[in-house]
Amino acid sequence: MPVTSTLKRTRTSRQAKSAQLLRTGVVVFTEKGFHNTSLDELAAAAQVPKGSFAYYFGSKDGYALGVIDAYANYFNRKLDSILSDVTVDPLTRLEKFMDEAIRGMERFEFKRGCLVGNLGQELAALNDPLRQALLVTLRGWQVRIQVCLEEAQRTGQLSPDRKPAQLGKFFWSAWEGAVLSAKLERSPEPLQIVKEMFMSQLRVPAGH
Amino acid sequence: MPVTSTLKRTRTSRQAKSAQLLRTGVVVFTEKGFHNTSLDELAAAAQVPKGSFAYYFGSKDGYALGVIDAYANYFNRKLDSILSDVTVDPLTRLEKFMDEAIRGMERFEFKRGCLVGNLGQELAALNDPLRQALLVTLRGWQVRIQVCLEEAQRTGQLSPDRKPAQLGKFFWSAWEGAVLSAKLERSPEPLQIVKEMFMSQLRVPAGH
Repeated sequence: MPVTSTLKRTRTSRQAKSAQLLRTGVVVFTEKGFHNTSLDELAAAAQVPKGSFAYYFGSKDGYALGVIDAYANYFNRKLDSILSDVTVDPLTRLEKFMDEAIRGMERFEFKRGCLVGNLGQELAALNDPLRQALLVTLRGWQVRIQVCLEEAQRTGQLSPDRKPAQLGKFFWSAWEGAVLSAKLERSPEPLQIVKEMFMSQLRVPAGH
Repeated sequence: MPVTSTLKRTRTSRQAKSAQLLRTGVVVFTEKGFHNTSLDELAAAAQVPKGSFAYYFGSKDGYALGVIDAYANYFNRKLDSILSDVTVDPLTRLEKFMDEAIRGMERFEFKRGCLVGNLGQELAALNDPLRQALLVTLRGWQVRIQVCLEEAQRTGQLSPDRKPAQLGKFFWSAWEGAVLSAKLERSPEPLQIVKEMFMSQLRVPAGH
C-alpha cells in the first residue's frame, strides 16, 4: 500500500476522532458547564481514553476552544441556511430561525440552552482566551442578523431609519436572556415573548 | 448578666455571622459560579472555619439557597427604591435603574454580572431547588417592572394597548442577555443598546 494512502487514512481517522470528541463536548458543556465537567467524565461520554484529550487538543482549555469553534460552525451553518433562504422574505426568515430554536429547546426539555450563554456566564471573568472565542462567535451571529435586516430594509420590509447593527445586537441580548429564562421556567414562553415583541417592533411603520 | 440578654446577643452575633457569609457568597458565586467555588475557598474569603457553612446552612446547596435569597432581597430593595420614586415619571425610573446597573457593572470592570444569570445558566438543568429559587427571584423582578409600566399606562406615558406583564418579561430577557454580552465584551455598549432600544419602543405612540 502506498505510504501517502496510509497517511491520508490516518489523517481522516484523526479528524473523525477529534470531531467526535468535539461533538461530545458541545453536548456536555452545554448541559453541565466547563468547571463542573471533568476530563474523566468527558472520556467516559466519548468512550475514549482520558489521554485522548491531551493528545488531540493539548489541554482542557485547548479542547474547550475547539468545542466553541465546532459549536460556532454548526450554528453558523444553521443560521446561514435559514437567513439566506430567498424563497421567503427577510423578516419571516428571522421568525423561522426563532421557531426552529424553540423547537430545539423543547426537544431537550429546556435543559440544553446555548453553549455561548452557558460558557459566557461561567468563563467571561475567568478565562480570557475562552472569553474572546465566545465573543467572536456571538459577533458572527449578530452580523448575520444585521445582514438579514439590511436586506429587509432594501426590500422595504424594515424602515430605513432603523439601525440593523444595533438591532442585531439587541436581538441576541434578548434571545440569550430568553434562553436563560426558558431554562429556568422549563417553558417556551420567554422565547415566544421575545419573538412576538421583537418582530412587532420591527414592523412598526417608518417615522415612529 | 441576665440570661435573656446573653441569648439575644448570641442570636444577633449568629445573624451577623450568617449575613457576612451570605455577602461573601454573593460576590464569589457571581464571579466564579457554584461548582467552581469550593467551601475551602469560601471559608478563606469570609475568614471563617470551613465548618461554619455546615453549621449555619447545613450544606453547600443550603448555603446557595441563602445566597440567592440574600441577593434577591438586596436587589429587590434597589429596584423598589428606584421604581417607586414618585418624584420622577415611571419610564424615567426604568431608565434610572438601567443607568445605575450600568455604573454597577463598570465599577467591577464587567467581571461581575448578575447572580441569577450566572447561577441560572449553570444550575437550571442540574439542581431543581436552586432553579426554583432563581426563577422565583426573576419573577419578582419581572413583576416590579410590570407594576412600573402599569403606572406609566395610568399616567398616559405608555400606550394602553401595550402589555406590561409581557414587557416586564421581555425587559428581563433583554437585560440578562445584555449583562452576558457586557461581560464578554468588557464594555457597557450592549447594556446601552438595550436601554435605548427598549425605551424607544415603549415610547412608540398608541396604535402602532
